Amino acid sequence: MKLGIYPGSFDPLTNGHLDVIRRADKLFDRVIVAIANNDSKQPMFSKEKRVELASESLEGMDNVSVETFDGLLVNYAVEKGAQAIIRGLRAISDFEFEFQLALMNRHLNSSIETIFMMPKDKYTFLSSRMVKEVASLGGDITGFVPAPVLHAMRERSK
Amino acid sequence: MKLGIYPGSFDPLTNGHLDVIRRADKLFDRVIVAIANNDSKQPMFSKEKRVELASESLEGMDNVSVETFDGLLVNYAVEKGAQAIIRGLRAISDFEFEFQLALMNRHLNSSIETIFMMPKDKYTFLSSRMVKEVASLGGDITGFVPAPVLHAMRERSK
Amino acid sequence: MKLGIYPGSFDPLTNGHLDVIRRADKLFDRVIVAIANNDSKQPMFSKEKRVELASESLEGMDNVSVETFDGLLVNYAVEKGAQAIIRGLRAISDFEFEFQLALMNRHLNSSIETIFMMPKDKYTFLSSRMVKEVASLGGDITGFVPAPVLHAMRERSK
Amino acid sequence: MKLGIYPGSFDPLTNGHLDVIRRADKLFDRVIVAIANNDSKQPMFSKEKRVELASESLEGMDNVSVETFDGLLVNYAVEKGAQAIIRGLRAISDFEFEFQLALMNRHLNSSIETIFMMPKDKYTFLSSRMVKEVASLGGDITGFVPAPVLHAMRERSK
Amino acid sequence: MKLGIYPGSFDPLTNGHLDVIRRADKLFDRVIVAIANNDSKQPMFSKEKRVELASESLEGMDNVSVETFDGLLVNYAVEKGAQAIIRGLRAISDFEFEFQLALMNRHLNSSIETIFMMPKDKYTFLSSRMVKEVASLGGDITGFVPAPVLHAMRERSK
Amino acid sequence: MKLGIYPGSFDPLTNGHLDVIRRADKLFDRVIVAIANNDSKQPMFSKEKRVELASESLEGMDNVSVETFDGLLVNYAVEKGAQAIIRGLRAISDFEFEFQLALMNRHLNSSIETIFMMPKDKYTFLSSRMVKEVASLGGDITGFVPAPVLHAMRERSK
Repeated sequence: MKLGIYPGSFDPLTNGHLDVIRRADKLFDRVIVAIANNDSKQPMFSKEKRVELASESLEGMDNVSVETFDGLLVNYAVEKGAQAIIRGLRAISDFEFEFQLALMNRHLNSSIETIFMMPKDKYTFLSSRMVKEVASLGGDITGFVPAPVLHAMRERSK
Repeated sequence: MKLGIYPGSFDPLTNGHLDVIRRADKLFDRVIVAIANNDSKQPMFSKEKRVELASESLEGMDNVSVETFDGLLVNYAVEKGAQAIIRGLRAISDFEFEFQLALMNRHLNSSIETIFMMPKDKYTFLSSRMVKEVASLGGDITGFVPAPVLHAMRERSK
Repeated sequence: MKLGIYPGSFDPLTNGHLDVIRRADKLFDRVIVAIANNDSKQPMFSKEKRVELASESLEGMDNVSVETFDGLLVNYAVEKGAQAIIRGLRAISDFEFEFQLALMNRHLNSSIETIFMMPKDKYTFLSSRMVKEVASLGGDITGFVPAPVLHAMRERSK
Repeated sequence: MKLGIYPGSFDPLTNGHLDVIRRADKLFDRVIVAIANNDSKQPMFSKEKRVELASESLEGMDNVSVETFDGLLVNYAVEKGAQAIIRGLRAISDFEFEFQLALMNRHLNSSIETIFMMPKDKYTFLSSRMVKEVASLGGDITGFVPAPVLHAMRERSK
Repeated sequence: MKLGIYPGSFDPLTNGHLDVIRRADKLFDRVIVAIANNDSKQPMFSKEKRVELASESLEGMDNVSVETFDGLLVNYAVEKGAQAIIRGLRAISDFEFEFQLALMNRHLNSSIETIFMMPKDKYTFLSSRMVKEVASLGGDITGFVPAPVLHAMRERSK
Repeated sequence: MKLGIYPGSFDPLTNGHLDVIRRADKLFDRVIVAIANNDSKQPMFSKEKRVELASESLEGMDNVSVETFDGLLVNYAVEKGAQAIIRGLRAISDFEFEFQLALMNRHLNSSIETIFMMPKDKYTFLSSRMVKEVASLGGDITGFVPAPVLHAMRERSK
């Protein structure tokens, strides 16, 4: 059984993330969406809320589950028995940072591979940061995020 | 009549910005230098002061005006009746971010185009951030900023 | 009156080129699609055929005309009374080469600006070379090129 | 059962390729090394010889097989029942081209995913072209290619 | 006598830095490791501690000395009688920023050259920031930093 | 004594090359401009002519000499007793290829360092290829190449 881990902050989950998860779902027997506990950053949504929003957005995808993790990603991946870490690549700037991260992770534990996947081209410009910025300026983010996230962001901005 | 909008923080306006504005002035019937209201960032100069410094630096360019804007850039551009948003490209790192921004803006409103222009090669290294850093370390910024900005920065560092 | 020149080999014109031309058409009073005479390269279609295919594909766009040119692009642009050279940017690799070309052109004649525009994101992957390669391998290029080009390529592969 | 296809010219197979194949072998139930029939390019080794060299170099990897293919890669992948095309990424320049290719392939057939994997960092600089160039200048390529390839290249240069 | 200056925050010195210093030592008669006084950033180690850790890590390299500097790097370099500023390049993202910095420095003082050197490929992924992040997540950083730095980081995390 | 080798095709030497050589001259006790014998490519000027043009262009720089070399660059560098190979970096695309080359050279012989230097920003766009293309289209290349090269190119185009 092949298990892939898709880590991130998911603050919030976007349609770009969702697209990568759907693609990963076809390649792996099981996929874990692993939400990082970045206590240092000030997230828009709490860890618990992010798990809830991701879970609702992924309803019906039976081989995908949502978890949180602490500490080093590679340690978590080994613990779970994963073969691979999945990362979405949208652009060169992603690529550079992701490359360094993947090399570091390989040095920390060489048994876990990192694979890169591309979201649909119409999601090239999408990132959690962009979504939050557009929303904060009063822009319409329908089409950028799944329905549960859209709902939660509207609730929050009231 | 073709109207182009050149948005930015302009904190402060550099000779690189000035060079792009002069080039845009030849392509459009009218150009608006649109100063963003980034309340979240701590600017060196207030919004009002940035408008004043830009206006003084652009004296004599009769088809160029300076304004501030709030909210989404594309909404502001539509309101003004603009055909295009103008962005200066100096380097790859600019390019990536600008590309994502332009795509996002196109998704928010497809009637506004983004065009990219190059400042003179001798301004490749210039940015507002670099100018502020050099000034803070006691370096000479003559030649990097227009006279009104130079004067204001000297006043400020006293 | 503002005139923009959109130069290239257009061997053949793709839907990505068409998309850039439509966007340029909104910014300039008149646009010339200028087909280069690269005698050194072995084109798929002759210069005359490329003019014919581009003209048919651009039917109905009254402010756009198709021409060929020899010699230096900047000399041709000056002769035509253009304000700007228009280039489409799809990716970083384009950008680098385009940047050097634009700088060279500016050194050869500083009165002509180069502006960069983005095709629709769904055309990011499209290039004349890719289209020819896919066609040569028996792939379906409907949706990648305008109808007249599609027809001509099918004729040619018979 | 998950099948991955690793396409390329493999003229010749390098230790960088071998490293990617070993990593893919851990992720997929079966991997096909698919050697392209680029009749237009002048290869160093014939298609048959490249299959032979790859097969010898991959001896003992029971879930990996070597084949050749004609026509469009995505058609071949669908025919084989593959879930994914595997590509190695060494550097930005790879990335750009690979990205465009992957997008084109997705447009041609959306049922096949492209995933990117990284060879070991010590193989970052390795490519078939580099190996051939070093060998042609009399350099030592031990450590860059598997033993069967090393042997064949020595035979050839006699 | 040729003198090279290797500036940075060195918070802390990594094995990647050490590798660049060893390479610079072969090219210059004397090398100064110049630790910047970035009072604005919150360093992990004080300026004095960073000097101490660098000095201990560089023991036995008789032509290399460690100093701190304030103000503009080029002024400091001129004062010391240096011919060159040395910078390590690991990746494109480094390159862009370094390029702008080098151009700015050249504009501030044209008598000082900037040269770029590459650390060993196995250190491509290493940066002070990565080391601190891995350590903060409980990862093992042996092999990433010299022994004195390893010791100090362990002391600190107690 | 520190010796640097500046290798290339120099077909022909441009003012960008000249600028890098002047900068290298300040860092090394002696610099060799090493002209590669690329028999496979069709050069504009013969190896002998390129040596002659470079020598004339470098007149008065007493610590710089011009040579040709065959075979692997690193072997030649070791033979000459050089400490470093010098390469000019103008843009990202250079950087990528140069990086791979430098890593390959380091693997072939670890005793030779590669250092990268930047030509003046006004030469960013200059390359031998661009100069030849502009000349072939009837453009003016004064200011792009040294006087002896300008003279030879004019002779040749008669």
